[in-house]
Amino acid sequence: MKKKICIIGNRGHLNVVLDDLKNEPGYEITGVCGAKEIPAEKVANDCARALNYIPKIFEENYIEMLDSLKPDILVVCGPFEEHSSMIVEGLKRKIHVFSEKPAATSPEGLNELTCAVKDNPEVKVAQMCGPYYEAGMWTASKNLDAIGDIRLLNARKAYKLGSRPDYFRNRDTSSGLIPWVGIHAISWIYSFSGYTPFKTVFATHSTEFNHGYGDLEMTAACLFKFEKDIAATVSIDYLRPENPDFDHGDDWIRIVGTEGTIEATSKECQLTTRSSHETLSEKPPYGMFADFLRSIEGKESNATTGKDFLRVTQATLLARESADRSEAIEMSQIL
Amino acid sequence: MKKKICIIGNRGHLNVVLDDLKNEPGYEITGVCGAKEIPAEKVANDCARALNYIPKIFEENYIEMLDSLKPDILVVCGPFEEHSSMIVEGLKRKIHVFSEKPAATSPEGLNELTCAVKDNPEVKVAQMCGPYYEAGMWTASKNLDAIGDIRLLNARKAYKLGSRPDYFRNRDTSSGLIPWVGIHAISWIYSFSGYTPFKTVFATHSTEFNHGYGDLEMTAACLFKFEKDIAATVSIDYLRPENPDFDHGDDWIRIVGTEGTIEATSKECQLTTRSSHETLSEKPPYGMFADFLRSIEGKESNATTGKDFLRVTQATLLARESADRSEAIEMSQIL
Repeated sequence: MKKKICIIGNRGHLNVVLDDLKNEPGYEITGVCGAKEIPAEKVANDCARALNYIPKIFEENYIEMLDSLKPDILVVCGPFEEHSSMIVEGLKRKIHVFSEKPAATSPEGLNELTCAVKDNPEVKVAQMCGPYYEAGMWTASKNLDAIGDIRLLNARKAYKLGSRPDYFRNRDTSSGLIPWVGIHAISWIYSFSGYTPFKTVFATHSTEFNHGYGDLEMTAACLFKFEKDIAATVSIDYLRPENPDFDHGDDWIRIVGTEGTIEATSKECQLTTRSSHETLSEKPPYGMFADFLRSIEGKESNATTGKDFLRVTQATLLARESADRSEAIEMSQIL
Repeated sequence: MKKKICIIGNRGHLNVVLDDLKNEPGYEITGVCGAKEIPAEKVANDCARALNYIPKIFEENYIEMLDSLKPDILVVCGPFEEHSSMIVEGLKRKIHVFSEKPAATSPEGLNELTCAVKDNPEVKVAQMCGPYYEAGMWTASKNLDAIGDIRLLNARKAYKLGSRPDYFRNRDTSSGLIPWVGIHAISWIYSFSGYTPFKTVFATHSTEFNHGYGDLEMTAACLFKFEKDIAATVSIDYLRPENPDFDHGDDWIRIVGTEGTIEATSKECQLTTRSSHETLSEKPPYGMFADFLRSIEGKESNATTGKDFLRVTQATLLARESADRSEAIEMSQIL
């Protein structure tokens, strides 16, 4: 029997899920529902376009969907501010959850989520900002051993601003620049540090020159200290020039180790050691959702789940708070 | 009559001075002296090799040299921890001073220096980390208008560790990684921000994996907030791989404006706007010391003197202090 997947909403990267499902005959989408301004029918249409079948449609009541269909996996692409409560509802029912980032948009949401993860250690939860699903980043991860002990990381995530829906105008519904965009770069520095626990964060962000987008920050910068005296800078902006020759996002990381340096973009990775300088690029073997399915199946997987995805989420929320308060914040250990 | 230059020591970048002097027939080195472990004769030999004459030699007593030769310009390449007092002795005598960085290595030294600069506003002082003397950085400065209002900067300065004299082992004599190496990158972010006053700094540094070099930090990272909500990250390390294909230093800056982005290395500059993407490189018209001479002569010059070089020096010392204390530090306005 096929494993059952339910989907809430289609905000963000639902395409990642649908694309990977084309090659997963053992899974089936059994139900979809809308949320707030997202009509359930649109979610169903996305599924039909990708997979040629229409799952059962629930309007806005995802609880009813979960209780009646009892899926194995829940995909959360609803309003950002409802991610954490939607994930918690899945966890309570022992349903694995693959959620759009950020998994929580408030300290309270993160706290509830952490408790639910703790109470259900056998249930997998991941969010859509895993570190190793672009060729450059994947290749970097495969070559990390060549550069010795990791000491310093610099990451950047820059997006074109483009034209954005109204929910980006308000912190309550957008989550802000650091949790929505910066979380990718924060996920990279955390994983490339060897999943070393965060210790301290100082950050800053600014809404200046935001073209009337309300609360939305255009630029941010973070400095993270990890244990073992490892440090990382993160630069985040919506100021990538809207040049048609460039894609939407500018992803970059530099990883400095005791024996060499790696610089990676989404496409390729440059490895420099004492004796060599190479440009490498290898396609990651699994997409982000396929990799999450592997983690559920108990296979070797890079999906960051449990305390790792919670730490990344915590780091984004505390960076945002640090920027709001202009104070360095010590990070307590989550889980 | 030729203008007279005296030189203390030969630590650091004295070659910048000697190289530029080859094309300055209006200036002459009249005296040199040693300092601590630097013999005066070595300084004289450096001059002789570059300029084919041997100036008057004073052993260690630079005060005697200043009082007897009454130079127009003093070049300070002595022990780092004596820079500020040597500059102050020059200022008190109305002698223009071109000093190796950092101009001060302690808050007390910076304070004395600031008072002396304030009391002698007509006397020029600059330090050897001006921002626009590499092709890439110079070209960036010439194209800054194309990217609109500057909002975010990311800079990096990475050096090969190599083999270093003993004075690098001790904070008192090395000044530390941020003031000695980071100061270049801090000078870039300050000047490319449009000489916007610094507001806050948070930094971190680590002596881990320093090959027994005592106090010497191998890695550091800084986050600076400027006025106008401009932010900058700075990454500094001694971990550049000792690969013979690469030169000593890895210089890089990314400047994000409201209308475009510039990335520059020492060699070239990439300018990206909504409608173009170009790689540019133009040689700077003057060397660092020649440019300082222009500032003395009242000509148009990029040399950062007065409050600007003091602000850069202050920023390095407060970044180091922030890293020592693991606290964000508000920066008061110098001068």
